Amino acid sequence: MITARLLLYCPDKPGILAEITDFITVNKGNIVYLDQYVDRVENIFFMRIEWELNDFLIPKEKIEDYFKTLFAQKYDMHLRLYFSDTRPRMAIFVSKFSHCLYDMLARYTAGEWDVDIPLIISNHPDLKHVADRFGIPFYVFPITKENKAEQEQKELDLLAEYNISCIVLARYMQVVSPQMIEAYPNRIINIHHSFLPAFVGAKPYHAAFARGVKIVGATSHYVTTELDAGPIIEQDVVRITHKDSVEELIKKGRDLEKIVLSRAVRKHIERKILTYKNKTVIFN
Amino acid sequence: MITARLLLYCPDKPGILAEITDFITVNKGNIVYLDQYVDRVENIFFMRIEWELNDFLIPKEKIEDYFKTLFAQKYDMHLRLYFSDTRPRMAIFVSKFSHCLYDMLARYTAGEWDVDIPLIISNHPDLKHVADRFGIPFYVFPITKENKAEQEQKELDLLAEYNISCIVLARYMQVVSPQMIEAYPNRIINIHHSFLPAFVGAKPYHAAFARGVKIVGATSHYVTTELDAGPIIEQDVVRITHKDSVEELIKKGRDLEKIVLSRAVRKHIERKILTYKNKTVIFN
Amino acid sequence: MITARLLLYCPDKPGILAEITDFITVNKGNIVYLDQYVDRVENIFFMRIEWELNDFLIPKEKIEDYFKTLFAQKYDMHLRLYFSDTRPRMAIFVSKFSHCLYDMLARYTAGEWDVDIPLIISNHPDLKHVADRFGIPFYVFPITKENKAEQEQKELDLLAEYNISCIVLARYMQVVSPQMIEAYPNRIINIHHSFLPAFVGAKPYHAAFARGVKIVGATSHYVTTELDAGPIIEQDVVRITHKDSVEELIKKGRDLEKIVLSRAVRKHIERKILTYKNKTVIFN
Amino acid sequence: MITARLLLYCPDKPGILAEITDFITVNKGNIVYLDQYVDRVENIFFMRIEWELNDFLIPKEKIEDYFKTLFAQKYDMHLRLYFSDTRPRMAIFVSKFSHCLYDMLARYTAGEWDVDIPLIISNHPDLKHVADRFGIPFYVFPITKENKAEQEQKELDLLAEYNISCIVLARYMQVVSPQMIEAYPNRIINIHHSFLPAFVGAKPYHAAFARGVKIVGATSHYVTTELDAGPIIEQDVVRITHKDSVEELIKKGRDLEKIVLSRAVRKHIERKILTYKNKTVIFN
Repeated sequence: MITARLLLYCPDKPGILAEITDFITVNKGNIVYLDQYVDRVENIFFMRIEWELNDFLIPKEKIEDYFKTLFAQKYDMHLRLYFSDTRPRMAIFVSKFSHCLYDMLARYTAGEWDVDIPLIISNHPDLKHVADRFGIPFYVFPITKENKAEQEQKELDLLAEYNISCIVLARYMQVVSPQMIEAYPNRIINIHHSFLPAFVGAKPYHAAFARGVKIVGATSHYVTTELDAGPIIEQDVVRITHKDSVEELIKKGRDLEKIVLSRAVRKHIERKILTYKNKTVIFN
Repeated sequence: MITARLLLYCPDKPGILAEITDFITVNKGNIVYLDQYVDRVENIFFMRIEWELNDFLIPKEKIEDYFKTLFAQKYDMHLRLYFSDTRPRMAIFVSKFSHCLYDMLARYTAGEWDVDIPLIISNHPDLKHVADRFGIPFYVFPITKENKAEQEQKELDLLAEYNISCIVLARYMQVVSPQMIEAYPNRIINIHHSFLPAFVGAKPYHAAFARGVKIVGATSHYVTTELDAGPIIEQDVVRITHKDSVEELIKKGRDLEKIVLSRAVRKHIERKILTYKNKTVIFN
Repeated sequence: MITARLLLYCPDKPGILAEITDFITVNKGNIVYLDQYVDRVENIFFMRIEWELNDFLIPKEKIEDYFKTLFAQKYDMHLRLYFSDTRPRMAIFVSKFSHCLYDMLARYTAGEWDVDIPLIISNHPDLKHVADRFGIPFYVFPITKENKAEQEQKELDLLAEYNISCIVLARYMQVVSPQMIEAYPNRIINIHHSFLPAFVGAKPYHAAFARGVKIVGATSHYVTTELDAGPIIEQDVVRITHKDSVEELIKKGRDLEKIVLSRAVRKHIERKILTYKNKTVIFN
Repeated sequence: MITARLLLYCPDKPGILAEITDFITVNKGNIVYLDQYVDRVENIFFMRIEWELNDFLIPKEKIEDYFKTLFAQKYDMHLRLYFSDTRPRMAIFVSKFSHCLYDMLARYTAGEWDVDIPLIISNHPDLKHVADRFGIPFYVFPITKENKAEQEQKELDLLAEYNISCIVLARYMQVVSPQMIEAYPNRIINIHHSFLPAFVGAKPYHAAFARGVKIVGATSHYVTTELDAGPIIEQDVVRITHKDSVEELIKKGRDLEKIVLSRAVRKHIERKILTYKNKTVIFN
């Protein structure tokens, strides 16, 4: 059954929740999901609501208009509407490490995720064999200081051609330029192999080893122009001891990275994330 | 500022949420908390809503009546109403282990919990010194097979005298009789020192050691007449290895037990738990 | 550099550790790993020691004899010797769920594991496409009550033909018969999708949902003739809430299952597990 | 039964372990604990060994001399010897938060820890009532910029008078001066309320909230002259969501802080920590 998924936020005022649920109910939308949250520091109301469209009186293509007309201006509301039969189209960027890529493609192939993954982009040819195993087109754009802007433009053209709506950096070992970030605002998900904000930047496992921490982590976040500083979607950790070498941290970290990245991707695909002021609201 | 806290559940129907929030808002109640959940298997709607009473048009003492009249019958609704200025009155039952008791009294004394703890009951005199340190009356009721019914009746009389609304079994090493459970339905919180339903009953750390598990846990739950089978409120675990002796499991478990019990007690005190069919709904 | 890996256990007596390390050192073996543990309840000494063979004075093929002659009888010692250049040959058994299989094959293909996986066996044809993607022979043996003994015998013949040393049941939905267990004692690793000993048997996520637990787990263990009761190798858990449906438990559980299974397989491959009286000693 | 506990580290060379265990065994010391570790990056051998003294041929007061004479110079070995009948004498420093103090005193009073806690020092009078409940002398040294050096000298005099061997900063809200750190090298344990190295310095929960992390942590470490940068002993974390306010982080963090601090204190008391180059080796 096709559902509409509405995500919104606005300054909190009495009656918003009642008004919206009432509007959907009166128009014969059967609400199957509702989660809401009020940030009482910023006084912002956040909501995700999902309802079935089969008896809904407003035609699918006019729903967004209705909500904008009726609520958006009145409540200074940001809203995004999705339909369950429109799958996100996701590009995966990789470099040389295969663990996150395999994890994502296994889920995709097993039907765990309601998404299309029509292409994989890399700055190295190493993982072409993985793409081939799963029958997904693999494009290589080697990046140097000199050609970076040019190559990224080609990537953007390709992404446009494939009608891509979101990007996952699955251990892509390049800093993405502001140009691309602007083209996909809060729609580029990265996995950083540390418990951010600890160990920003390169070689976080080496840094963690040097500091002698007893726990290492991984962090998935939306990419913003400041390195490793975008809105955090998901984090997790694993306990280590003095006996773990850097190589062992890397091994333990790999398992974290792929799980943390995949959890974030799933939340994104299911339209369960709102971002506000560099933080995320993650609906249940 | 005094608030009303309403917890309710009923068969899910369109419009309940809208109707209730609307009713509160129209009557000038400022909603400061709302969490709701629909069990789509059982088709039950659960809600916790909290609003400020200072401008609320309905007098405090009539609020429950209004909700019962307007909603309870119409929606086949179970509801419970609390006020933020009415503190739960809690009795603690202990035997010989002090860690949970100390943890609770430290929180209580530090003002972490909005609760009154007017008495401690034990079947052994061992922990009187702890009660004394915190200036709380300590009553000893030694229990034997022969005197159990009689002693529990005395305890019930004492609890009534102290106007107790809920009981915490803080490693109380006695099975509580159906008579007492009936007097405090879903208001007796126990801590069991295993990850239930594994290792029900006595000596769970010994059983965990014998089985060679790699993780041990603790479980807080409401007490029902079936041993260690009541609605689970909170659980947590800690990793162990083959190197941990039974004594070490007991030591590691103590830290779990007190934290897991105190988390459950806090949720109960804050009126954030609904029970339905031997399971709990824990609001945020 | 080729190393010898010696795992042993025996009744604890003074001097064993000194004697063995001394023997290796005197014979010019450079010890690169040593972990030992004394079970002080059972009074058993456990040790894993690894040393480089390049300057070792005893020829590789005679090392086991030397240790048996010098120590085994004297100390009533069980010992197993492995060499780093002899890779375990592992068969994977699957049914219809692909997540554990993908996870293992991704690691294998990426070179994470020092193992050979020459074949995959299934009672259903569903996952042949996964085996094909990774170029691994896939054999189907449909199992019915009537043909079980016969089919298992064929499987055993095939395993022998492939010179298989250990088996991983990667969500293989059949109980393995005593005949096969006997052929691979403590060399069949299973993943059970619960926190054992809770929820033994079929449909553990449904059972966990029905009980209302707040945490679910997964357990990898060696298979013995008693169902889900063999020596536990690794366990892990994930927190859930009342909001999680059975389907959600299954999804969250899948991530646990594959990580917990792969951790166990890695420990097995690295020869870091000793079993004693239905429990495991896991070396660092 | 009285035991000797020897902790040592030195450049790794063949035969050290054998030589030491042999020496103890030959002199009729019954080894009840042995844990060793080789840092293969730095090539350092670390060991903790414990043996019973009742039949040991070397008199207790000469053991240290023997080890120094026989091994220390030969192997360039740092060693520390403790006896199980000599309890550490610990001072607790506090300011205004009671949770860590209560947790430690509860354990101390319940006999969980083999330690003496003869005094508590604070820069504020607020927690005197806690000390009084447990009958422990409480000294107040108010600290200002002007009097800091003078007050710390008085504290040092007091510590010397009480024959204190280690200090626990149980949410002591003052930076300890180099003078005091030098007097107690690797013997001052602090609890920092973040997952170090994230959120060094003041108000880490506010910083964590502002960054929008999904997990918060606590870290216990030895105090060095660089703020929050000493050798880490123990860390742990707890999951949070966007719904958690700063106040909620503080509440959840309190439970972490006290458990993480107490785990570190226990390891210190049990003589299970060696520090090397700003990192800790924690024996089992």
